[in-house]
Amino acid sequence: MRRKLFDVIAGIRPVDRGLAAEGQARLDDLTKPRGSLGRLESLALQLFMIQGGGSPKSDPARIYTCAGDHGVAEEGVSLFPQEVTRQMVYNFMSGGAAINVLSRTAGVDLKVVDAGCLGDDFAEHPSLIRGKIGRGTANIAVGPAMSQDDCVRGLLLGISLAENARAEGYRSLGTGDMGIANTTPSTALYCAYLGLSPLEITGPGTGLAPEAVKAKAKVIERSLAANGAAVSGGDALAILAALGGHEISCLAGLMLGAAANKMAVAVDGFISTAAYVAAWKLCPAVADYAIFSHASAETGHVKVLAALGARPVFDLDMRLGEGTGAALALFTLRCAAAVLNEMATFSSAGVSDTGD
Amino acid sequence: MRRKLFDVIAGIRPVDRGLAAEGQARLDDLTKPRGSLGRLESLALQLFMIQGGGSPKSDPARIYTCAGDHGVAEEGVSLFPQEVTRQMVYNFMSGGAAINVLSRTAGVDLKVVDAGCLGDDFAEHPSLIRGKIGRGTANIAVGPAMSQDDCVRGLLLGISLAENARAEGYRSLGTGDMGIANTTPSTALYCAYLGLSPLEITGPGTGLAPEAVKAKAKVIERSLAANGAAVSGGDALAILAALGGHEISCLAGLMLGAAANKMAVAVDGFISTAAYVAAWKLCPAVADYAIFSHASAETGHVKVLAALGARPVFDLDMRLGEGTGAALALFTLRCAAAVLNEMATFSSAGVSDTGD
Repeated sequence: MRRKLFDVIAGIRPVDRGLAAEGQARLDDLTKPRGSLGRLESLALQLFMIQGGGSPKSDPARIYTCAGDHGVAEEGVSLFPQEVTRQMVYNFMSGGAAINVLSRTAGVDLKVVDAGCLGDDFAEHPSLIRGKIGRGTANIAVGPAMSQDDCVRGLLLGISLAENARAEGYRSLGTGDMGIANTTPSTALYCAYLGLSPLEITGPGTGLAPEAVKAKAKVIERSLAANGAAVSGGDALAILAALGGHEISCLAGLMLGAAANKMAVAVDGFISTAAYVAAWKLCPAVADYAIFSHASAETGHVKVLAALGARPVFDLDMRLGEGTGAALALFTLRCAAAVLNEMATFSSAGVSDTGD
Repeated sequence: MRRKLFDVIAGIRPVDRGLAAEGQARLDDLTKPRGSLGRLESLALQLFMIQGGGSPKSDPARIYTCAGDHGVAEEGVSLFPQEVTRQMVYNFMSGGAAINVLSRTAGVDLKVVDAGCLGDDFAEHPSLIRGKIGRGTANIAVGPAMSQDDCVRGLLLGISLAENARAEGYRSLGTGDMGIANTTPSTALYCAYLGLSPLEITGPGTGLAPEAVKAKAKVIERSLAANGAAVSGGDALAILAALGGHEISCLAGLMLGAAANKMAVAVDGFISTAAYVAAWKLCPAVADYAIFSHASAETGHVKVLAALGARPVFDLDMRLGEGTGAALALFTLRCAAAVLNEMATFSSAGVSDTGD
């Protein structure tokens, strides 16, 4: 099982930067002042390199919204009761959640994944993938969230989602999460992987008051202490097992799988970026395939992005998760691909260039 | 003629802010933590107030890309030759320009308007509106761009575009511009209307080198001096006639017409925002209907937006004009409307609220 994971990781290649000059020349020949489409051009160039040149396509695109529960919820770190994870999975299946509305509006397919919700398996449903690794995680404030074997299972689940999407003809992916209390493990992962401090980056999640945010930071401090051996050991997999969540390891696997299958992946917000950091620690080449969708309004996300040297596509003060930021970013990626593939060139349109 | 303009302006009403509480209550009842969709929620609320409540729709949406030539081009303020304005109008009609690609990708209708290009009328074309006010403007570095009568004609042209779109069933509008050298009159308008200085906000337009930017700032200083009476008089119409352009007065009229017809209008970038400032000086209530699409990479735009207290929807380092920013903003507005109209409520979805 671990062998399969490390085989996938070993197969991930950085993009061929030698293609950049060709892609840029293509962009510069289009009827617009050079560079005037800004980040649409850099996204087009990234997609061009990811797909090895030609006429790169971002569509069809699919978002996987991965759900899981968290033992640390018992520490009172979330405003919402834990049953909301399960209720929201039903809401995703019936099409009424924000991610349903936004993925529909953006023309992006959506699948919901039970990576580790509390309770029994959900009944079958065409938009649901039943991948339950466990019935929630254990409380990270007192010990590891899960075994390393379960963590590997979560990563392999995510990898299989990417493989399946590619086999079905999808060309790019988006990440989404659902899990009451999951800003807590995400914050703990940032601290362990990036050396940030809980007080610096702990935020209100779904809406905690300032005093409760302080208490949440203390829970994260306790979690780092309770998993001190994993944290100080610095092994990416051990840290993810100790402090992560089933939906988080699944999302990290999804990003590894995207890179292995040469697909761009729109990383959603605070929780998805924590999963990205885990994937990136396991395999740095994942960076070439990732698009950071937005700057979450969740405290700390902007600091994390800065620590990663990542610039998000947009900043709309969103902090919902579910993949809502990824849906908008995948529309932007479609625009970028369309610019590269569909615009006229100076010569074809009979437009005078500057003569540079 | 002037009577008709001032009748339209007199008919523009601020939105009813009394609707805000109802709109916010609707948003707060949707299955998401309160406020967690950030600016999508504020855009939804703005649209709700613009359309007087109910289930506001942003679609169908149309962008008018308005073209005109500028006498000040003879001062060497642009990298591209002046015939490019006309060539790009042909490119718009044949569908190969960035705005064609992006409006198509965003599902937004596009019309091109000859508001004042050099040369003869274009032949008829289904996507072209022939509204030529003049064959380019006069050189603002030596005198007024146009007569006040022609300026009123441009404003009325823009108003008629909005009226026609509304009559055809369109629910929101976007602005776009094409006109070689038009960052120069736009910068001059910002200086005259907002008291900014040319050196502070003059930028490279389509790509001038730093020395040429300084020379351009001097041309703008000369333009302000050559039109000193209009500038110091402070009359919004006189300033627009002195320093504007035919596409700029048309775009200002389009925004007045949008407000008069209770339509949201996505203001594109540097040139469109100059037209917005003219419209806003003529009628401050226009502000309620405007959505600032993006922070242009053109120097000065961010300072202008700050002076207006406006926060753009996104920042993708774009500086192309044509309406390319508006196309992306209209997609975002569609997302905002969809959230308000299509998401499930806590009670309908059986999801537990926080109990606040």
